[in-house]
Amino acid sequence: MKDGIKIVTIGGGSSYTPELMEGFIKRYHELPIKEIWLVDIEDGREKLEIVGELAKRMWKAAGYDIKVNLTLNRRDALKDADFVTTQFRVGLLPARIKDERIPLYYGMLGQETNGAGGIFKAFRTIPVIKSIVDDMRELCPNAWLINFTNPSGMITETVIKHFGWKRCIGLCNVPEISMKHEPKNIGKTRAELNYRFAGINHFHWHKVFDNAGNDVTAQIINHLNDADGGTPKNIFQAKFPLDLIQSTKLLPCGYHRYYYLATEMVNHAVEEFKRHGTRAEQVKATEDSLFELYKNPDLNVKPKELEKRGGTYYSDAACECISAIYNDKRQLLVVNTRNKGAISCLPYDSIVEISSLVSATGAEPLTWGNFDAHERGWLQLMKAMEECVIDAALTGDYSMALKAFNINPLIENGTNGINTINELFVAHEKYLPQFADTIKILKDKGISPQDEVVREIIANGN
Amino acid sequence: MKDGIKIVTIGGGSSYTPELMEGFIKRYHELPIKEIWLVDIEDGREKLEIVGELAKRMWKAAGYDIKVNLTLNRRDALKDADFVTTQFRVGLLPARIKDERIPLYYGMLGQETNGAGGIFKAFRTIPVIKSIVDDMRELCPNAWLINFTNPSGMITETVIKHFGWKRCIGLCNVPEISMKHEPKNIGKTRAELNYRFAGINHFHWHKVFDNAGNDVTAQIINHLNDADGGTPKNIFQAKFPLDLIQSTKLLPCGYHRYYYLATEMVNHAVEEFKRHGTRAEQVKATEDSLFELYKNPDLNVKPKELEKRGGTYYSDAACECISAIYNDKRQLLVVNTRNKGAISCLPYDSIVEISSLVSATGAEPLTWGNFDAHERGWLQLMKAMEECVIDAALTGDYSMALKAFNINPLIENGTNGINTINELFVAHEKYLPQFADTIKILKDKGISPQDEVVREIIANGN
Amino acid sequence: MKDGIKIVTIGGGSSYTPELMEGFIKRYHELPIKEIWLVDIEDGREKLEIVGELAKRMWKAAGYDIKVNLTLNRRDALKDADFVTTQFRVGLLPARIKDERIPLYYGMLGQETNGAGGIFKAFRTIPVIKSIVDDMRELCPNAWLINFTNPSGMITETVIKHFGWKRCIGLCNVPEISMKHEPKNIGKTRAELNYRFAGINHFHWHKVFDNAGNDVTAQIINHLNDADGGTPKNIFQAKFPLDLIQSTKLLPCGYHRYYYLATEMVNHAVEEFKRHGTRAEQVKATEDSLFELYKNPDLNVKPKELEKRGGTYYSDAACECISAIYNDKRQLLVVNTRNKGAISCLPYDSIVEISSLVSATGAEPLTWGNFDAHERGWLQLMKAMEECVIDAALTGDYSMALKAFNINPLIENGTNGINTINELFVAHEKYLPQFADTIKILKDKGISPQDEVVREIIANGN
Amino acid sequence: MKDGIKIVTIGGGSSYTPELMEGFIKRYHELPIKEIWLVDIEDGREKLEIVGELAKRMWKAAGYDIKVNLTLNRRDALKDADFVTTQFRVGLLPARIKDERIPLYYGMLGQETNGAGGIFKAFRTIPVIKSIVDDMRELCPNAWLINFTNPSGMITETVIKHFGWKRCIGLCNVPEISMKHEPKNIGKTRAELNYRFAGINHFHWHKVFDNAGNDVTAQIINHLNDADGGTPKNIFQAKFPLDLIQSTKLLPCGYHRYYYLATEMVNHAVEEFKRHGTRAEQVKATEDSLFELYKNPDLNVKPKELEKRGGTYYSDAACECISAIYNDKRQLLVVNTRNKGAISCLPYDSIVEISSLVSATGAEPLTWGNFDAHERGWLQLMKAMEECVIDAALTGDYSMALKAFNINPLIENGTNGINTINELFVAHEKYLPQFADTIKILKDKGISPQDEVVREIIANGN
Repeated sequence: MKDGIKIVTIGGGSSYTPELMEGFIKRYHELPIKEIWLVDIEDGREKLEIVGELAKRMWKAAGYDIKVNLTLNRRDALKDADFVTTQFRVGLLPARIKDERIPLYYGMLGQETNGAGGIFKAFRTIPVIKSIVDDMRELCPNAWLINFTNPSGMITETVIKHFGWKRCIGLCNVPEISMKHEPKNIGKTRAELNYRFAGINHFHWHKVFDNAGNDVTAQIINHLNDADGGTPKNIFQAKFPLDLIQSTKLLPCGYHRYYYLATEMVNHAVEEFKRHGTRAEQVKATEDSLFELYKNPDLNVKPKELEKRGGTYYSDAACECISAIYNDKRQLLVVNTRNKGAISCLPYDSIVEISSLVSATGAEPLTWGNFDAHERGWLQLMKAMEECVIDAALTGDYSMALKAFNINPLIENGTNGINTINELFVAHEKYLPQFADTIKILKDKGISPQDEVVREIIANGN
Repeated sequence: MKDGIKIVTIGGGSSYTPELMEGFIKRYHELPIKEIWLVDIEDGREKLEIVGELAKRMWKAAGYDIKVNLTLNRRDALKDADFVTTQFRVGLLPARIKDERIPLYYGMLGQETNGAGGIFKAFRTIPVIKSIVDDMRELCPNAWLINFTNPSGMITETVIKHFGWKRCIGLCNVPEISMKHEPKNIGKTRAELNYRFAGINHFHWHKVFDNAGNDVTAQIINHLNDADGGTPKNIFQAKFPLDLIQSTKLLPCGYHRYYYLATEMVNHAVEEFKRHGTRAEQVKATEDSLFELYKNPDLNVKPKELEKRGGTYYSDAACECISAIYNDKRQLLVVNTRNKGAISCLPYDSIVEISSLVSATGAEPLTWGNFDAHERGWLQLMKAMEECVIDAALTGDYSMALKAFNINPLIENGTNGINTINELFVAHEKYLPQFADTIKILKDKGISPQDEVVREIIANGN
Repeated sequence: MKDGIKIVTIGGGSSYTPELMEGFIKRYHELPIKEIWLVDIEDGREKLEIVGELAKRMWKAAGYDIKVNLTLNRRDALKDADFVTTQFRVGLLPARIKDERIPLYYGMLGQETNGAGGIFKAFRTIPVIKSIVDDMRELCPNAWLINFTNPSGMITETVIKHFGWKRCIGLCNVPEISMKHEPKNIGKTRAELNYRFAGINHFHWHKVFDNAGNDVTAQIINHLNDADGGTPKNIFQAKFPLDLIQSTKLLPCGYHRYYYLATEMVNHAVEEFKRHGTRAEQVKATEDSLFELYKNPDLNVKPKELEKRGGTYYSDAACECISAIYNDKRQLLVVNTRNKGAISCLPYDSIVEISSLVSATGAEPLTWGNFDAHERGWLQLMKAMEECVIDAALTGDYSMALKAFNINPLIENGTNGINTINELFVAHEKYLPQFADTIKILKDKGISPQDEVVREIIANGN
Repeated sequence: MKDGIKIVTIGGGSSYTPELMEGFIKRYHELPIKEIWLVDIEDGREKLEIVGELAKRMWKAAGYDIKVNLTLNRRDALKDADFVTTQFRVGLLPARIKDERIPLYYGMLGQETNGAGGIFKAFRTIPVIKSIVDDMRELCPNAWLINFTNPSGMITETVIKHFGWKRCIGLCNVPEISMKHEPKNIGKTRAELNYRFAGINHFHWHKVFDNAGNDVTAQIINHLNDADGGTPKNIFQAKFPLDLIQSTKLLPCGYHRYYYLATEMVNHAVEEFKRHGTRAEQVKATEDSLFELYKNPDLNVKPKELEKRGGTYYSDAACECISAIYNDKRQLLVVNTRNKGAISCLPYDSIVEISSLVSATGAEPLTWGNFDAHERGWLQLMKAMEECVIDAALTGDYSMALKAFNINPLIENGTNGINTINELFVAHEKYLPQFADTIKILKDKGISPQDEVVREIIANGN
């Protein structure tokens, strides 16, 4: 790192890349980057070229002499990297469409990080992240892996606990969104408040104190259902049951709606699905128009239109984390890291999403302690579910996948659940090499997705 | 105890009493009972008299000179008792009808020990068991409390952990049913098999070994869906998903169907409800005809018809436990007792249902150790739910009750769940003194049960 | 706190007070103190007056208009206090002389915070701290208690865990000494190093990282036996066994010499004792000459001579901590606070000495995780010993005191240990009201201290 | 096992073998043994032949047609074994003499299972037990390993936790001695008492209840210092401090004297050493005369003289355990087995000595729960010490051995301890292949044992 930092971004062809570039440009004074490598796969070549050229124009306009490399050869890129960021999506948006449509067909929530869709996203991603870590071990053994790929918590747990790569931190933009939006609702600035987060990715709570040490969580809860209550825009803003929330004395994250308001959320999702199709299909349209914008050779800054997507602030989380490590900042950030006892009710080796001090040695969680029974039970259930998912993803064991489905509270236990898991296996065949035997058996039994759109996607070779 | 044992049975007017009497008569050679007190309340006076007279005839026919006392004065009965057994139902069958009908009205499982009904059964029972323990502390400080009142696990946890009465063991007939029925399915006798149970009441698993130390659990699982697979008769016998069960390497209890087959079970329950009303209403009919039989002055044994009810073998569990304590038998029984680390993933002070050595000092669990992630997550969720229920029952806190509902996997999170809890509060007003404030607020808001049968029961003063 | 901070110092007549004043004066720009109350008891009146007048001169010389109050009435002082600091010594130096001489008489280490002496210092201090907390509950319920009174860890544990006063932080100067002295030994500044401490008071370890995240602990260990290796001056500087220390991969604290080099340390202590008497007697001489200096009406700064005592940097620790709370600094400090899972092998409710983020809400430990077997075993032993000491101090139970002695590794198990405990009880009679019954029995048996100096002190009414 | 049991005894030339034979003969009706293989090494050939012939005569006299095989070829013996018992001593009595004399030379306790000697016994034994387990894995993968070789707890922990051989139970005769001797001291029979043991090998406590469930521990403690208080005869019977013991509410084991009465025990040991030499040397004389007896061709029963040795009742423990497994007895025995949470304060995977149900599936501990602080601290220290010993034995790491010495409470920390460890390494060179590098360095530094007897033994090639 002595003569400048080398950054590698896997999934560099993502529409989010301009945001990441903007984040690095803003922080160049503290993060002296020497070279950036944007890596993608053959299927993403066109997008990589479009967004890569925009990235080059952005750095040039900023007046910095940074080398931006575009490549389909991951190993070339990884050689001697200092930080590797991951933002790829295995199977691209067609895979997300399947993750959403198949559960919805059976009346269950279709969502790419929670429920049945999130489980299959993990199944597809874990084999790929394994190959990335294998390459890193050989080519850049001292690099940090900064993961944004969802399900971010499970991917980070797999990398650290199962692949033994300790220099990994998982990130998510959800805490950042809360901290950006909530303070003004109680007439404070962010600097005047002291935030503490604990839980797991997409299933965490936070509490907030003012500068005199008073707990102001209850005040912020009262604004939770406000127009700008701090929930990511990709989540339907059903009204939280404030009686229940106040009794927890904790602020939920936006994704808690799926668990605290399950009926409303699934009803809304099914209705939307019938009327407008899935979110993935909407995102696809947004992305297409973003790439049209990116092609403009005069564009050399991040376009405003990008902020409409759910992933906003991702780059802030990533750049802050990288800078805290590089500059040994000992800065409080919310990250996915090893529990080590910080949350008493979860296993020592679990990955948790928690307020942590980030320095040159990595992330160290602040000790959170106990949760009350209600939050404890939910959290233990969700962590056990994650463990079943990871176990199934690593072993390709169908019965372990059944266990993951059985314990996931957003999936119906019974025939609908079985149909959903079986169809998802068949639909994602191309990206699930570890489950080849299972999928063969299912296909031999004649199982195939019932949803027309999904059948078409498969027919088109995805 | 020196000159014979004094037994007190609270809820002595229950139709199960003849079974209990039969159990004591069979074991008189090892359990030299001196007097039995059957205690009930004014509402149960008639039943107490009928069944009490039958009890007297049974002892006489057996040739033993035992004094059977019938009383409505609990304190008279408790004085110097050696063993107190509890089999009462607060609010009698009309309360059970409410527990079942109100959730079913909203499309949820209506069942008196699991889901919304079980939670309200706990709310009604805990204040009563508190008053019993208070009396015992004063009148029979060395007595053992042998609890069969459901939800048996939660009642036992409240007695031991919250009221500090250590000499308490909770019982259930479910393990006994498994051990009675399963061996023959693999061509063995019970004595040839070594059973180990662990979990919590109505949510436990077991594994089974033969005399050579081989694990025969998988063989028994294969017969789980047989006509006589070991499930209590009061549970709809939907087919367990054997793929999933085999992957757990554990035998579930019958009640696991509500969690492993939720869709099928709730669909069946709703359908049955529409066609035949609730189980409580069927039980009421059975009970009426049993009491008709009991009235026969020539009857002096337990009538066969009693065995058709779900509670069969209760008396075996109770009498075996009492004898193991009295005779310092150091006998392996499945009981509800303090965890103390036996099941690693549950709190030290939790009550668990587990294979235990029962001797004069009480029950000591065999160390079970870890569960795999799937079972661990479920179990931790269910125990957290129990803690929320008990907390709400003790404090009368509405928001804690909301938490219990939110975390219970058999209850929908959202509007249906809120309607159900609110109507149950109003419906059970008579038996929920600790929630008086909450119920007043709900009634002031105009909340009242929507189900016609429930409205009628309330109109009749129940 | 709005119109300036009110500080109360219990034991305000201590010779350390000028250091504390200097610390507050240096930080006045961030700690706007309004009034300071120095509290002492009748026996300390003269010292209080001398040092109190010096304090007034110091503030005046610094140009700040602060009210310094001297009082023997603790309740007057505590009214509406914001911060209460404790630096009192029950029984003053004569008690310390007994703590040191009696064990040394029997050939054991005589030291006021470790071994037999530390146990009796806790016995004397805990009843007094109880009365302080009782007063605070009534007179200043929002105040923070900043404890420096030794044994600092046990006192803090008693206050938080047993008296339920959560707004308490315990401090010690030992970590500060390490961080002041070690960096230069490896050619670094303190700012270039990242320190992490964990353990319990006077029994903690630390590890150190540089700005690039490299662990430099081993390099610092190599300098541990240097002239300025970071050990408090009151500890004999026997050479640490570096083979053993390097294998722990952790830096010990200076007090670890008593455990890692027990033979050498006790031999040296006994020899010193025979030649020069005890450290308490030397300290007494130093104190006398300090108070002579303090009397000088022209002195209006802290005199250099004060730095020779072992307690140097105490005021830095205290003032930094108070400022971090007052200014919500979220600053990393080493403090005694609740474990809450930060150190996996210690109980949740234990007080530990650990790197913590200190803000307006108090101290939150950074999660440390596991220790290896060797450190884990030592630490668990020492914490168990502390629990026995506190239990005995609270209950006045002689047999619990025997347990504390039995498990303390600096005390011989057997006749010498029994003689030592019995003589210490008799010698400290005046300050051990909770053990009155025990002491009466011992005196009735004819037990009295064998050491001549101790006999004389007692004869003089101490 | 179908056509009779095959037993293999490693260290079959031990003088204890007749006791083991007697145990099997007594239980032949329930343990139908087909063949017994007594295995030893070349150095033990003569003893094997003598004791082996006696064994044959014993079986013949009993009237059973059992094949007793004597062999120096362990692999021949292990083929298809059902139970393998271990009673070997690496280095025979000369090694024990070194374990005892070298620490005593430096004024520390010299004892072969506790303190410095026990650590080196573990160092010598662990490589040998590894090779036995390797052979078993290949030749008798379903066999049970019943270990009596000391230090029994550490050997069992190594076999189960480190070598992964789950079918292993460790035994010791100490609990058996307590249960044989104590009941009569309070006028009871053993059957009238209910014993519960928990702790680790040579460091466990027990509590005792009568048939009415009353705790009679305190009554038995009052007889602890009686002539026949239940302490093994090889331990000096110094008087326990009953005040301390009563306050623990637990009965200690005889070995606790080394920890509760350290001064007295070490003083006695040093004195004895000066007067009579070590216990090993006394044992050697006893053994020589036993083997003289064994040679008598008319002897065909176990001679009474054997009972004088400390290991009495070993065979009862072993035969009871083997029979409980073979006959699926579900019998309560005190064994060394996996903790799994039974003792809350020890790691899950630790081996503990505890009251367990032994059946065809092996040993399952009864859940013990918490210890109070005093016992907890001691136990955690001792277990951590064991872990350091095992780690050093497996890795051959000198610094880990230093840690084991540092944390062992029977070893002085400082120069004496270092001298002792270094001399023991050099003295045991022949049996410590894993420490070859360490020993070479020590020898190059000129370290050699100072004790004359030890020098002579080494000069004689041992």
